[in-house]
Order: sequence, then structure tokens, then C-alpha cells
Amino acid sequence: MLRWLTAGESHGPALVAMLEGLPAGVEVGAKDLQAALSRRRLGYGRGARMKFEQDEVEFLGGLRHGLTLGSPIAVRIGNSEWPKWTTVMSPEAVSDEAYAASDDVNAEKEVARNKPLTRPRPGHADLVGMQKYGHEDARPVLERASARETAARVALGEIAARFLDQSYGIRLVSHTVSIGTASVHEGADLPTPDDVEHLDADPVRAFDPAGSAAMVAEVDAARKEGDTLGGVVEVLAYGLPPGLGSHVHWDR
Amino acid sequence: MLRWLTAGESHGPALVAMLEGLPAGVEVGAKDLQAALSRRRLGYGRGARMKFEQDEVEFLGGLRHGLTLGSPIAVRIGNSEWPKWTTVMSPEAVSDEAYAASDDVNAEKEVARNKPLTRPRPGHADLVGMQKYGHEDARPVLERASARETAARVALGEIAARFLDQSYGIRLVSHTVSIGTASVHEGADLPTPDDVEHLDADPVRAFDPAGSAAMVAEVDAARKEGDTLGGVVEVLAYGLPPGLGSHVHWDR
Amino acid sequence: MLRWLTAGESHGPALVAMLEGLPAGVEVGAKDLQAALSRRRLGYGRGARMKFEQDEVEFLGGLRHGLTLGSPIAVRIGNSEWPKWTTVMSPEAVSDEAYAASDDVNAEKEVARNKPLTRPRPGHADLVGMQKYGHEDARPVLERASARETAARVALGEIAARFLDQSYGIRLVSHTVSIGTASVHEGADLPTPDDVEHLDADPVRAFDPAGSAAMVAEVDAARKEGDTLGGVVEVLAYGLPPGLGSHVHWDR
Amino acid sequence: MLRWLTAGESHGPALVAMLEGLPAGVEVGAKDLQAALSRRRLGYGRGARMKFEQDEVEFLGGLRHGLTLGSPIAVRIGNSEWPKWTTVMSPEAVSDEAYAASDDVNAEKEVARNKPLTRPRPGHADLVGMQKYGHEDARPVLERASARETAARVALGEIAARFLDQSYGIRLVSHTVSIGTASVHEGADLPTPDDVEHLDADPVRAFDPAGSAAMVAEVDAARKEGDTLGGVVEVLAYGLPPGLGSHVHWDR
Repeated sequence: MLRWLTAGESHGPALVAMLEGLPAGVEVGAKDLQAALSRRRLGYGRGARMKFEQDEVEFLGGLRHGLTLGSPIAVRIGNSEWPKWTTVMSPEAVSDEAYAASDDVNAEKEVARNKPLTRPRPGHADLVGMQKYGHEDARPVLERASARETAARVALGEIAARFLDQSYGIRLVSHTVSIGTASVHEGADLPTPDDVEHLDADPVRAFDPAGSAAMVAEVDAARKEGDTLGGVVEVLAYGLPPGLGSHVHWDR
Repeated sequence: MLRWLTAGESHGPALVAMLEGLPAGVEVGAKDLQAALSRRRLGYGRGARMKFEQDEVEFLGGLRHGLTLGSPIAVRIGNSEWPKWTTVMSPEAVSDEAYAASDDVNAEKEVARNKPLTRPRPGHADLVGMQKYGHEDARPVLERASARETAARVALGEIAARFLDQSYGIRLVSHTVSIGTASVHEGADLPTPDDVEHLDADPVRAFDPAGSAAMVAEVDAARKEGDTLGGVVEVLAYGLPPGLGSHVHWDR
Repeated sequence: MLRWLTAGESHGPALVAMLEGLPAGVEVGAKDLQAALSRRRLGYGRGARMKFEQDEVEFLGGLRHGLTLGSPIAVRIGNSEWPKWTTVMSPEAVSDEAYAASDDVNAEKEVARNKPLTRPRPGHADLVGMQKYGHEDARPVLERASARETAARVALGEIAARFLDQSYGIRLVSHTVSIGTASVHEGADLPTPDDVEHLDADPVRAFDPAGSAAMVAEVDAARKEGDTLGGVVEVLAYGLPPGLGSHVHWDR
Repeated sequence: MLRWLTAGESHGPALVAMLEGLPAGVEVGAKDLQAALSRRRLGYGRGARMKFEQDEVEFLGGLRHGLTLGSPIAVRIGNSEWPKWTTVMSPEAVSDEAYAASDDVNAEKEVARNKPLTRPRPGHADLVGMQKYGHEDARPVLERASARETAARVALGEIAARFLDQSYGIRLVSHTVSIGTASVHEGADLPTPDDVEHLDADPVRAFDPAGSAAMVAEVDAARKEGDTLGGVVEVLAYGLPPGLGSHVHWDR
């Protein structure tokens, strides 16, 4: 059974992801994870941050000479913006003097960054996170309840996907089915794993050009109104053996 | 409920330890873990490695300004010997040419280090680890089945101990009760948490001087015969509330 | 944390459900579970079996004088049809002679019942269950991959629902939103827990009469074609405290 | 992975044990479990209860024609003394009138049985169980914190042992090594699975006659002083394949 944990704050030194239970002999390297993380930055209407953020992937355990060892895998995803945050997000205690004298960032920005965030944003975990963990500042919540955390999952997911492909010939492909009320047309062709490059070139990763254009239009309209939209993504697995799962118990 | 995973090979770049489920607000810093790791290196009759090995502790997640955030904690324990092993233990694939040209260590040592270890040692996990994970070399097994892995547990244990002390006033102390056939005398006083410094000064961490001397003598005798010895360690918890655990189910 | 397991074959002596981790002091009795199990038999277009099947509920552990004890709860749901199946579904070994002489059912029916079921039904777990567990007969699969197993879940669910209501004032109500292409109209009122009786009186448990009629018509049409339909059910929780769950880890 | 839960109070209608995860095809029947439960009643210096208590074993799920199905196994171990306790230990609410009129036991005994037990016994879970679960009566605690609960474990253990033997040829034998300060002599022969009958004939299940006599003497002496004794039991597994467990993670 695979177990995995992720750690790391959005503006902290790094994200860390750990995966326990993978067999030995899976071929994988930092460049594979980097490629997956680049694909994670694709998308239409995303925030500016995705543009400048760089993910520095480093394996700290579980790999030797490009092959998994069977031991737990640890991946460190460095945060290229960390030098601007070493005081605000320091894991270690920071004296008031050190804080004041901090020159790791532009002084004014530093002051702004360091101000407690006491206005919890709607639609976020800010308020309940502050209540549950006893923070008077939203910073400790939003640093973890951040889309950046998904980088850790993407990294481990890439390792898992390579294992499935190399050991069982199982290949996965995902595509966007709908955003808001716009969707691919009924009966549209389904993509195969060979279509990934083609899908990645589409602004919303839809496999149907008309559907894609409609989704882009909905995103534009929502953005104009300062709103966001939900959507549906489909993941297809090819080469799956029959009979996965079991009838004997609800969670088996 | 607390969950924890550890990763990292003995001669790899680092050990990584992750702890999920700890509440926010526990005071802890790298220097606390470093102190615990220094105490881990104490002991009588240990190998030379303990002497030169340095543990560089760095928090990568779960902490801000010296306090836990409630989010998963990730600790990186750097291996100060790593520069000598960057080729032999490279996580990434290494070409034969790169291997040959490797100048990260003395060339002869490198050759020795790189030779597959095909003679599994008795009393170790070498043989069964090779069989189970399909390695023809003991290196991938012994790198993980190593006492160094316990450094990751000591680091997390120190965080847990600080949580118990700060939140509940529970304090722990451990001491050696016996090594081989030598033991502290019946009815010897039990140490309290205030005796830790005193215990750490004893070569085998026994609280009874006569018992300590007898244990040291057994270790010396065993070493002369190229043998090792088992022992018994007792952990005492002070300040424990009554009624921990439950009668309702075997594992609760 | 609550843990639960269910056991029992569809035509076996009984279903058994076990729930570990519930606090002491929850008021519940066999008649509460029986009422929930009666509601489970409601529905439009269901098989005949639901009509004659009786659920005999008996608590075997975890309860005293109508209150939970804090210890694991065990519920036995007797199968009123069991006397017809004591040979075919005997847990104990049955000799060929005993089998032949079996008079626990009409002889002809017995022969029919006992014939191995070697034609796996499409859309069921029969084939893969036979492959996975090494059965040459579909009987051992279909006996467990049966809608009757849900009776065990309903029984435990009723206990859990009473706990939520009594301890936190959390009350649940479910209703059918759509069957096939028919659904309640957009913006229809949502039911509250006080509407349960009213919902139970509707053939498909929809809260919107026009929607209900459309769903009934779709079921009738599908039945005429020997087909079945999927649908969507919504569960509403009232009185929920804010901030359930946590942002710190994906599965917390 | 195997999961198991047990339920049932000591004087309740039955113990129930559930085992999820066992493969199909293991041969087992009620008589096997009954034999194991008879062996559980052996021992020197035990309370009188063991004498008259009968264990009525019945499989409620997971078995057909003497073979496991792969589905969860449920065992009901009926309590032959239950008719004397139907009011005191009724799972269902009991009115005061019903209680007073109860004729399921001798009236005087009934009154005695029904009196709340408010003097928690030392060395038992009574006090902390009452505190933790909010009972003002020790009855709900001692009914579950009872040696009788182990009957459920013995029943499941017998199934597991048969699985190990039938599938892998692994056979187990246990024997008593010491009671109080008395023990088998150093270097005594170890029993094999073929010695079980011989061991069962010894009053304390020791394999060394002199050691057995010494243990019996210690039990007699302790009983005279109204005391009890601890001991050490050794479980030996024969036919174990090499390499069980793994070096990669502490709990694997």
C-alpha cells in the first residue's frame, strides 16, 4: 500500500513530498518531475505567480542512479522566491531587531509582507483555519491552504504514473470536459495518452476546439466580473487490467 | 492522530522526516533537534563514524518564527559526508564516463566504494533485502537498513517530547537497565527528568555506578571477541494523566 | 475515529455490522434500526424481494438498557428467508448425502438453487469476483456483491445519525434530484429534516411533484425496455458547525 | 491486509468477532473454533467460571460449505449463561416495572446483580473506564474489560492459524516459559507443533516437568496470599519463509 505525506508552506523554503511503499526499479529523475511541474503551470486565466515561479526539484531519498530503491522517496521542491521571504517565513524565531533590520527584501515590501493578515478572505480556509488552529493572523493558514501545495502532489503523481506505465503498461490522460456552462460537445472523441502534447497546447486543455473556445469565453466573462468558475476534468486510464477493486467490502 | 514517515539513505544527501498531525503553537527550533541528535551520538563502544558525522538540521515546513503551524512538519538532516558520495549515491542516473571521471572523491576510494557489495553480512538485512527488492548489490539495502535512519526518528521524537512537555507537563527520561548479563542492581533508584545530564555523562547511560562499570566490562569483553551485545532500556514518563488508553478494543 | 466492518451473505443466516469508536450514552434501540430498514425498502420499480424480506434486528454488543456503552457495537440482521437456504448456503461442510436428502426446501427448487451459476451476469461483479477469488461458481460472489449488504450500512448509519443529532443537533435529510434525464426543476425548494415523512410518501423520494412524475415515467419506460437507470441523490446536513475538516493535509 | 474487530459484553448475549481480508478457500468449521476455545479454558488456578461457561460457535458470514469465501468472516460466540442476565444486561431499554417483575433469574440474585457497582476494583480498568466514558457504575466497564473478550480473539486466531498452515505450511506452538520467579531450565528443549497435546496436558503448559512443578508451587503460594502472578509465554513459528518484514520503513 502506498502512503504519502506533503509538507511546506507556499512562501517557505521548499515543499517536501514523501512516498512510501513504491517497489524498487522504477526509472525516474528530477527532469521528469520538472516536466510534470511545467505542465502544472499551464492553464488559462491563472494568476501571475505561475509565470515567475520556478520549481527546483531534488531527490533527497529513495533513488539511486535514476532508479527507485524500494525505500521511501523524498522530493524537495525548492521555492525560487524564498530569498524574498527568509524573515517573514523564517522557520526559526526572529528577534524584533532582526526583523526591523531585515534586508532580505526591499524594506517597504517587507513591512507590508509582515503585517498580520486579519481580514479573512471569503471562499478560502482563512477564517476556519484561524479558529481551528488558534492563529490571530491568516498568514499561517493561507501559506498551507495554497494551490502551490499541489506541486508536491504533481511530483509524486508523476512518479506513480511512471510506475504504472513501466510495470503494467497503464497510461493516463486527463482533459477538461467543462468550465462553467461551456463544455465539449456530446459524443466528442476521447483523447488517448498520445494526445497529451496536443491537449497541452490548448489554452484550457480541451480536446474539442469549439468547446475550448466556449470555455475561454466563459473564463473571460467571469474575470471581467471578478468571479471564478468551476469545471469538470476527466481522467482516462488506458491498459487497465480487468477486475480492479473487490466486491467483498465497501472500502476494498 | 500523529503520522510520520522517514526517508533518506545513510550516505545520501540527507535524511528527511515528516510529522503530520501536531497542533499549532509548539515551541521548537533547529538547535533543539541538534541537541537531541548530539545526545544520540553518545554511547560506549560505538563505531568511529559517530565521531565525525555532523547533523545539519533544517526545517523545510510546518514551522514559522519558532512555533509549529499545525501543518505537516518536514525536517531535513543534511549529511556532512555527502560530498564524498555524490557519484556513488547520486539519485540521478550517472553515465559510465561521468563515473570514471568522477573527482568528487579520491579515485581509489571511489573505485572501492563503487564496487557492488555482493557478500551479504550475517545479522543484517542485506540478504533478505536483496531478495525482496531484486537488488544484486547489498548497497541499496544497507543504505536504508542503517542506524543512521534513527536520526530521523530522534528529530521527530524531540518535537513530540516538547509537545508533551509544553502542553501536558509530561516529561520523559530513559536509562540503560542492562547490557548482556550486567544490570543495575535490584531496587536501584529510578532517574527523573532532572537526571538527564547526569545520565548522559555515564558511558552507558546507567543510573547505578556499579551496574555501569559491569556493563562497560561486558562491552569490552564482547568487543575483544568481535561480538556485540543486546540490552534493556527503560523509558519513564513523569506527569502522565491517569487513564490513557481504553478498555473497549484491543488497539485503542 | 469510527471504524466499521460488515459481513454476511445475501441468503446466509444473517448480516452482521460492527461499529467501533462511538461514545457512550447514545440512545438507540432495535426498533430505531428496524424503522430505518423499513425506509430502505421504499422506492419505485424495485424487485419483488424487498416485499417479503423481513429484517430481524438484534444488538449483540455495545448496548445496555438502550444506551451505547462506548464499546464496539454489533448488530445482527437476521434473514427471514434463511430456512429455505440452510443447505445451499450452509457455512459448515455438507455431505453429498445430506445435500441430496435436504428437505429444508421444496426438492425441485433446491436442485435449481444448488446448481453452480456459471453464466456471469453483465454489469455485475460476477466475472471478476470469480477470477479474483478463484471461484468456478458465481454464487459466492453474488451472495456478497448484493444490494442486501446495504442493510448493514443502513443499520450502522442510523446509529451514527442518532449520535450526530443527540450530541450536536446535526440532522440529515436525503432526496432524489434526478433519475435518468428527469430531474427536479432548477431552484426547487430544498427539503428539511421535517420533510422526511413527506419525502418517504413520494414514489421516488423527490421533493418536487412534477419532477417526481417525470422520474416515474422514465423508470416505467426503462423497465419496458428491460433496462435500468442511474440517478442523483442529495444529502443535506442541517446544524453543521463551521470549519469541519482542515486545510493542513489533503486527507484531514 | 487483515482487519479485525471484536464486540460483546462478558454477560451479554454473545461475543462477535469479525475478520476482513482473508483469502477464499481456507477450510474451517465451527468445531475447529470450539476446539480452540476448549484449549483456551485450560490453565492452573483459574476462576470457577471457566468450568461452566460454554462457547456456542456459529458462523454468520464469510463461509460456505466449510470454506472461506473471501468475504468478511463473522463469528458469533453465544454465552450459555445469557438466560440469567437478560434483564441486567438487556441491550434494549427496560422499564422499572419489567425490571422488578423480572423472573429470568432468582429474584434475590437479580437484585444483587442489578445493584450499581460503585467500588472500582484496584488493578482493573474500572475507575478509568468510568471516568473516560462517563459511567457512574463499573458494570459497563468490567463487562468489556473482561478476559472473556479473548474468546473472540482465540476464534479469529484459529482461523488465521489454519490459513497459515494450509497456505504456507507455517505452524505455531506456544508454551509457558515462566510464572513469577519459576521458569523452565536454561537450555530446555523447545516444543514443536507436534507437542501441543503433551503441552495441553501440563497444568501450566510448560514443556519442562521440573519447571512446571515449580510454577504450580508459585501459583499455590500466591493464591494462599490472595495474590496473582505474571509470566512469560513464548510463541514459536515453524516453516516460516525467510525475509518476512522489510528494512525500508519502521512499520513495514
